[in-house]
Amino acid sequence: MTKTFAINAGSSSLKFQLFEMPAETVIAKGLVERIGIGDSIFKIEYGDDQEFKTVEDITDHGRAVEILFEKLKEFKIIEDLEEITGVGHRVVAGGEFFKDSTVVTEDVIKKVEELAEFAPLHNPAEALVMREFQKRLPNAHMVAVFDTSFHTTMPAVNYLYSLPYEYYEKFGARRYGAHGTSHRYVSRRAAEIVGKPIEELKIITCHLGNGGSITAVDGGKSIDTSMGFTPLAGITMGTRTGDIDASLIPFLMDKLNITDVNEMINIFNKQSGLLGISGVSSDMRDVEIAAYEGNERAQLALEIFENRVQKYIGQYIAAMNGVDVIVFTAGIGENSKEERENILKGITWFGIELDPDRNDTRKEAIISADNSKVTVINIPTNEEVEIARDVERLK
Amino acid sequence: MTKTFAINAGSSSLKFQLFEMPAETVIAKGLVERIGIGDSIFKIEYGDDQEFKTVEDITDHGRAVEILFEKLKEFKIIEDLEEITGVGHRVVAGGEFFKDSTVVTEDVIKKVEELAEFAPLHNPAEALVMREFQKRLPNAHMVAVFDTSFHTTMPAVNYLYSLPYEYYEKFGARRYGAHGTSHRYVSRRAAEIVGKPIEELKIITCHLGNGGSITAVDGGKSIDTSMGFTPLAGITMGTRTGDIDASLIPFLMDKLNITDVNEMINIFNKQSGLLGISGVSSDMRDVEIAAYEGNERAQLALEIFENRVQKYIGQYIAAMNGVDVIVFTAGIGENSKEERENILKGITWFGIELDPDRNDTRKEAIISADNSKVTVINIPTNEEVEIARDVERLK
Repeated sequence: MTKTFAINAGSSSLKFQLFEMPAETVIAKGLVERIGIGDSIFKIEYGDDQEFKTVEDITDHGRAVEILFEKLKEFKIIEDLEEITGVGHRVVAGGEFFKDSTVVTEDVIKKVEELAEFAPLHNPAEALVMREFQKRLPNAHMVAVFDTSFHTTMPAVNYLYSLPYEYYEKFGARRYGAHGTSHRYVSRRAAEIVGKPIEELKIITCHLGNGGSITAVDGGKSIDTSMGFTPLAGITMGTRTGDIDASLIPFLMDKLNITDVNEMINIFNKQSGLLGISGVSSDMRDVEIAAYEGNERAQLALEIFENRVQKYIGQYIAAMNGVDVIVFTAGIGENSKEERENILKGITWFGIELDPDRNDTRKEAIISADNSKVTVINIPTNEEVEIARDVERLK
Repeated sequence: MTKTFAINAGSSSLKFQLFEMPAETVIAKGLVERIGIGDSIFKIEYGDDQEFKTVEDITDHGRAVEILFEKLKEFKIIEDLEEITGVGHRVVAGGEFFKDSTVVTEDVIKKVEELAEFAPLHNPAEALVMREFQKRLPNAHMVAVFDTSFHTTMPAVNYLYSLPYEYYEKFGARRYGAHGTSHRYVSRRAAEIVGKPIEELKIITCHLGNGGSITAVDGGKSIDTSMGFTPLAGITMGTRTGDIDASLIPFLMDKLNITDVNEMINIFNKQSGLLGISGVSSDMRDVEIAAYEGNERAQLALEIFENRVQKYIGQYIAAMNGVDVIVFTAGIGENSKEERENILKGITWFGIELDPDRNDTRKEAIISADNSKVTVINIPTNEEVEIARDVERLK
């Protein structure tokens, strides 16, 4: 048995899971939050429900990695660093360059840094974390797994915007999408569950978390996805607007006396979505409770969220000229039977019939009725195991 | 018999049709182009295919109206101004205030001027033209017909963006849509053609012209439409991007060294769409010819246009949970059997079957096969007659 890390570095966070492979057993997992912000939180779970948490200032991702390795030894999760033979790193932006996961080399790290223009907060942190792991585990097999790779199969008709064509050629202005590892994992799992070759299936995967995206997976390939050039676009999210009329930018900048367009985009990313509409919270659970208690704007936020998901399902049925399977996954998708029900009961015309008893689950299960023309499946996503598998696959 | 004008004033243009009512016979029609730009064109058709055209500098809309009245007398189209008893004015932005066409009063004109923030180039010109007609026809019955009124029935779930809610309350940041007069006209006509009460029908109206928009008409009411806060949003148009990731604005401004966000929006409005993708033309006919001759970017422009229309049809089927009738109208919609065919052959899963022989038309006709689950109808739009009818209706 060897041990493999799945690492997910965000702009101010570091999530990790340590697997025994090929068994895929999780031996430790945790996260570091508020890196460089102060009052940083380090949390690790291991062994038989053992948990350790500390709050201290963690100034940068280098220090975050250092603490992680200290604790792995302190809690005897590993005896010897050599046990860790594999590390998979999630990378947000792979552009058009990385069409699959890839073994990490110096050139790969440099390319990840170059692609920072498509993910200014994420890619530099991820490159840095790769170097930190290289220092500590010089003999480990390292793989970079890109959020965008799964979507590189999109045809031009779906990835191009109706902009002057040279903006694509010169600057790479196109749809890239995100959550690729999740859409890939759940679409393959869906094919296994229905027992058909994925090549014969039209699948719509709804990754509904704090960030959310919907993908049309035709024959196993992503052919369209709701996130765009950046993760701002698509459906209503926790704090993000999703799709919007670009003309609102100059209009609102004028009304709000904002002179820097980035400030406006920041509001669209961080103060909008469920939070902006409801005024209550970016967390679907809070919004559901407020709506249940009669808060009208919270109710409106739920309805708008459901409406946007319904409309993306409709447009991806059009894009694939059909649908066999719809998958729900991620925080809201896996856990909110109410949201799944509300979304699906509004689009029965497509031949979708939910089974309310089957829908009462948070686990992997077919939740549509036997006579439903479209099979609907709830699948908890597992990006970490998909990353660990890629480390094995690329050995 | 009385005579009624239908007037459509743009930022630098003035279109007119003079009807005999209630017969709806067109006795004259024409337009003034390039107002205030120089080398302005005045064109009028009347009588038995008589036509007059002149090129001269027309400095403002006041002068444009003056010339129109001079020519009406000179060509003996009317003997006495008192014959013109009605004038209908198309207004681009009616905001949430004008839920129907309305008799023009001083208060109405002032409100149209106030609403200029939603249509800075159009509403001021339209208010000015109303005053010019009031001066010359003080006894005529004048009505304002708003491009947005038909869409004021949209529910909040579809007109609200996922922005901080106060942007809607304070500034009116919401979806307004456009082409309302056309969507209203063709949806009612469609109900007449299929011989069912419009209250019982779910209709998707595709107004595909140089500007284009798609509307979901449920029970006779617009419940969703593809244009948004402004006519920039929605499908790919002649020169407009349609929907786009708002994050592209700061990215492209940086790449293009643009400091004024309005300059970027101007590119999205005037250099994008079919023109931007193809590099050939904003005119669908030119793009079709170039594509036919093998120009790959022109082919791509057509495919993207068709793809966006298909996806809006899909999302509006979801929004209404069904569809009975799909209507094609306006320049491209009415006239390009190729575009209609390419759009519809990609979405047969919805139960849409085109009859190729019936589709070979530019006239009002059902173009779907008898066994098609969804009835598809080609309907030449007639916004002018709809405006003239509103003048009668509000007498």
